[in-house]
Amino acid sequence: MNYKITIAYDGTNYRGWQMQGEHPTIQLAISQALAKLEGAPVTVHGAGRTDSGVHAEGQVASFHLSKDWDGKALRKALNGNLPSDIRVYSAEQVDDEFHARFSAKRKTYRYQIYNAEVMNPLLARYAWHFAYALNPEKLTHDGQALCGTHDFTTFTVADCETNTNVRTITDFFWKQSNSLLQLYFRGEGFLRYQVRTMVIALLELNRGRIAMTMPELIRSQKRELIRGSAPAKGLTLLAVEY
Amino acid sequence: MNYKITIAYDGTNYRGWQMQGEHPTIQLAISQALAKLEGAPVTVHGAGRTDSGVHAEGQVASFHLSKDWDGKALRKALNGNLPSDIRVYSAEQVDDEFHARFSAKRKTYRYQIYNAEVMNPLLARYAWHFAYALNPEKLTHDGQALCGTHDFTTFTVADCETNTNVRTITDFFWKQSNSLLQLYFRGEGFLRYQVRTMVIALLELNRGRIAMTMPELIRSQKRELIRGSAPAKGLTLLAVEY
Repeated sequence: MNYKITIAYDGTNYRGWQMQGEHPTIQLAISQALAKLEGAPVTVHGAGRTDSGVHAEGQVASFHLSKDWDGKALRKALNGNLPSDIRVYSAEQVDDEFHARFSAKRKTYRYQIYNAEVMNPLLARYAWHFAYALNPEKLTHDGQALCGTHDFTTFTVADCETNTNVRTITDFFWKQSNSLLQLYFRGEGFLRYQVRTMVIALLELNRGRIAMTMPELIRSQKRELIRGSAPAKGLTLLAVEY
Repeated sequence: MNYKITIAYDGTNYRGWQMQGEHPTIQLAISQALAKLEGAPVTVHGAGRTDSGVHAEGQVASFHLSKDWDGKALRKALNGNLPSDIRVYSAEQVDDEFHARFSAKRKTYRYQIYNAEVMNPLLARYAWHFAYALNPEKLTHDGQALCGTHDFTTFTVADCETNTNVRTITDFFWKQSNSLLQLYFRGEGFLRYQVRTMVIALLELNRGRIAMTMPELIRSQKRELIRGSAPAKGLTLLAVEY
């Protein structure tokens, strides 16, 4: 039987999604919980390989089990075997063809920025402190320029697993509640570090520290124009659509 | 010179506000940071003695320093000497008569409840997981019944420091955003554990597990009618008015 689960996790104490030997990763924790239920190793496929320290509220994974599980019973059994910073929100049986990664159509990421002189310590695990004033119209304008189909080489690292750096971003929008800014990026797929590098680029352009427009920065394909990337703790994989 | 500071802290790693020898407390951390600036011990008065694990976004403290500090410079110097889970939002010189505790007129507390079958791990440090369905009208109605001047003996513990358990609650209201419920209590002062015990009472009444109305429960003055109190991690001291 093929199963799909939706998962949330606080990524602070994990080296990201993907298994790396015995290092703490989300994939390892879920594999271990499933192995207890199955009595044998289980291969788990995740929709997105979130990096070290990145959080999720709507990560999706799929795997096969020999037993016929009711969704609620499987969710309960998994949550009983997982640490409290990883929670299964839902579990269901799906068609044999379903694959969390290859069947995914769109993903939504949220990046949180705390934009005030002094950081709010209650948000320190989940938002990046950025003390400089931002121009809201420019943020919207530059974010819109990221939308569409582009070669995003400027915003990623060399990665032997991808043949092309062309991706499509369908939506960018942002919300503000007091000093907390939430930036949303939705697209068919993202390159490694792409969201966090786009966030840094948006902030640097906003402060006038890159003497280019966003379309010029995209076309440049020069990663060295952007210094570093925004910290992992501000990023959350919010949803995967199929 | 007399100073007033407004402070935020993540209470997870502290045994509350009040100094207890060398145990980690907020008061100790601030006293130590101030002693570095003053070159001598400094007595710090807090508006509210938050309990172990309770958070703050608007705690207020006052103290005297011999030096004439600019507010922004004092804030910066303190934040440079405090751990990152305690932040000074503002600092200012005030009249000599000002005392963070005795001058306080009203305090506002927020209690966060995550009301869904499965806990959101990104809220686990700052909200209490309560899985049972709640009746919103009854929550509003019972919370309103707490407002006014009452003897709140039902909702506290024996405490030799207080002469009377009569207190005045001026406002109760609550907000909901998806599964997160935020309960707000504003009053001239609160007894030890009062907010967390009122929260448990509201939830137990809501589920029909206490066969009384809220006014009857208040009048009973029987602490044993309410089992325990809501966990500290859901509680935040939001603001102190002067």
